[in-house]
Amino acid sequence: MEKETARIEAFSDGVFAIAITLLILEIKIPGVGSGDLARQLLRQWPSYVAFVISFAFIGIMWINHHRLFTHIKRSNNVLLFLNLLLLLGVTAVPFPTAVLAQHFGQIDQRAAAILYHGTYFAIAVFFNILWGYASRHLLGKEADVSAAQTISAQYALGPLLYLVCIALTWVNVPLSLLLNVALAVFFALPPHRAVRAAGR
Amino acid sequence: MEKETARIEAFSDGVFAIAITLLILEIKIPGVGSGDLARQLLRQWPSYVAFVISFAFIGIMWINHHRLFTHIKRSNNVLLFLNLLLLLGVTAVPFPTAVLAQHFGQIDQRAAAILYHGTYFAIAVFFNILWGYASRHLLGKEADVSAAQTISAQYALGPLLYLVCIALTWVNVPLSLLLNVALAVFFALPPHRAVRAAGR
Amino acid sequence: MEKETARIEAFSDGVFAIAITLLILEIKIPGVGSGDLARQLLRQWPSYVAFVISFAFIGIMWINHHRLFTHIKRSNNVLLFLNLLLLLGVTAVPFPTAVLAQHFGQIDQRAAAILYHGTYFAIAVFFNILWGYASRHLLGKEADVSAAQTISAQYALGPLLYLVCIALTWVNVPLSLLLNVALAVFFALPPHRAVRAAGR
Amino acid sequence: MEKETARIEAFSDGVFAIAITLLILEIKIPGVGSGDLARQLLRQWPSYVAFVISFAFIGIMWINHHRLFTHIKRSNNVLLFLNLLLLLGVTAVPFPTAVLAQHFGQIDQRAAAILYHGTYFAIAVFFNILWGYASRHLLGKEADVSAAQTISAQYALGPLLYLVCIALTWVNVPLSLLLNVALAVFFALPPHRAVRAAGR
Repeated sequence: MEKETARIEAFSDGVFAIAITLLILEIKIPGVGSGDLARQLLRQWPSYVAFVISFAFIGIMWINHHRLFTHIKRSNNVLLFLNLLLLLGVTAVPFPTAVLAQHFGQIDQRAAAILYHGTYFAIAVFFNILWGYASRHLLGKEADVSAAQTISAQYALGPLLYLVCIALTWVNVPLSLLLNVALAVFFALPPHRAVRAAGR
Repeated sequence: MEKETARIEAFSDGVFAIAITLLILEIKIPGVGSGDLARQLLRQWPSYVAFVISFAFIGIMWINHHRLFTHIKRSNNVLLFLNLLLLLGVTAVPFPTAVLAQHFGQIDQRAAAILYHGTYFAIAVFFNILWGYASRHLLGKEADVSAAQTISAQYALGPLLYLVCIALTWVNVPLSLLLNVALAVFFALPPHRAVRAAGR
Repeated sequence: MEKETARIEAFSDGVFAIAITLLILEIKIPGVGSGDLARQLLRQWPSYVAFVISFAFIGIMWINHHRLFTHIKRSNNVLLFLNLLLLLGVTAVPFPTAVLAQHFGQIDQRAAAILYHGTYFAIAVFFNILWGYASRHLLGKEADVSAAQTISAQYALGPLLYLVCIALTWVNVPLSLLLNVALAVFFALPPHRAVRAAGR
Repeated sequence: MEKETARIEAFSDGVFAIAITLLILEIKIPGVGSGDLARQLLRQWPSYVAFVISFAFIGIMWINHHRLFTHIKRSNNVLLFLNLLLLLGVTAVPFPTAVLAQHFGQIDQRAAAILYHGTYFAIAVFFNILWGYASRHLLGKEADVSAAQTISAQYALGPLLYLVCIALTWVNVPLSLLLNVALAVFFALPPHRAVRAAGR
């Protein structure tokens, strides 16, 4: 029998796959006759960095979505709605990525970085809401309660840590982006190792 | 055994997932040197609102499509064709969304809003045609006839209510958009609650 | 057990779904201050017509792909390659569509129409090659040989009829596009009815 | 029971399908009034060639990904991560393709070709890392060890051969692209025939 959440997972996979692939469209193609191509390509390095960070973020969000749905066994209308809210955040990522790529190192880089971290903060909040609901109502009977608690402990840190990124932009914008990358690595860790790494 | 409608559902999921993800491409990236970034980002708030409304609309269309196909057990050429007609409407959504985002608050906002509501009117009509056909010919034997009737009652209101949105643009454009959002919420409700809410 | 062609079908569904959804991106958003919005929207009607024709064409290609793979039971490297060739044609469709939309009614409309019909001619040829190979080597034992022959008879007309479209552009470009639309309807028909309609 | 890697495969299929379909968006639509349309269409032939080469490359990468996952039976976090790394390379392809299309035959064609071959070199390296890990840890018990070794022998040549492409750009840029196309054909061959063709 088909798993009850099969079509949610298929739809979400589609949205993740598209959002992650659209990122490349935001990188500009240097035109002919506007100077040495190699130099032009190098000059837009912030675009490549932003591409890689956002790719890593969406990819890791997908891995985590995948992990959650190995535990979530049932579906209902609330889950459909909360999942859409999460996907709203994920599909928005190409926009702040392009804004950051264009304004990094420029006069308005702080505003661009705040928009960027702010989007991730919102996604982290939506992720916690989704998992908070699903872990209380939609786990299979055989679900390991302690596994669910470990996941919850890891995710609970997300919104907080992205707020720290936002605060850091007043100190140093590149530093705030480094922390953002480090967070992607942290959320890529399997929950039990992540929680141990966070000393909880 | 694979469900007969499996590949229609997979294809439709793909189209919904792409249409919902492409919406973000219509939001403009403010350039460097064209003034304060934060103010520029704020000034294009109609784009964000249009993005969220259209995202909600397509997402809720997907939920409803999902609901219908839990009842539809068989497939035939007419279903393939009517489903394509519905998808034609769904893939078109990024266009009126971008037109509305660009013209909201401007001199031609009424024309933009009519195009927007009109697209939704057409989609609602296509949805009714699809369900009208499928509910008569393609339900499983075990299908709950009264469940199908409840769905029909909810959907029948769609075209009418989007016509009201169009009419409202002559009174007040923002108000007509608020009604449009309220309709998204109404169609997100499970059919039996929606019908009760509509007092039918 | 999973059907041998399952992943080919999933990949192809993805490509069809994306190609059909990207079509909308080629329609231009009228800017603010460039004149009356309603008139501007109406003036670009060739874009809408091209969108609908191309949508119908890709949708019907998908239906036919779907039909073929209900007969094709096995997969091999040649099938993978021929299927990619077909998808190459399908993904190209947004380009001639946009060229046609922009040049219809203009001085160079014949060149645009030839590019458009020519793309469809190539796709029809690829379709015949794919089906020619699969119908000889990859059908299930239970496959209805006469059903396969009926499909072959319908498809064999495709390249020929699109050549007629190309020839017609020297007589009348809009007429050639009308024939193109009629062909989409013809290929949407179930094979046995299509063959009867063609008087074969 | 669902195969453990089913959702990785579905997600990867989505990414491959989207990346291959986005390539068409990089081809420019000649405007009205900028001269004879047919001549303009012909003049941008490097765009079409780049489109076809990149399409073939991504398509063949997909076929190979498909082949690997018929052998890979289990999944773990390392596989998820290495697969994302591969997909990072695949989604990037539209960018170097567009750069090459625009600069081929121009003064900076060598830089464009190096970027193009370099992207393929990186993807080939990622492919080897993925397969190196999976073939040691994630094959089914029944996996044919010698089949795995044959695949490894074919893939090991990839990075080397794309380095040769890069070196060739100093001799002759079109020649380096011809070798690139020949490599696509080589990697499309079933492993045992490819290894024989390479005389190993």
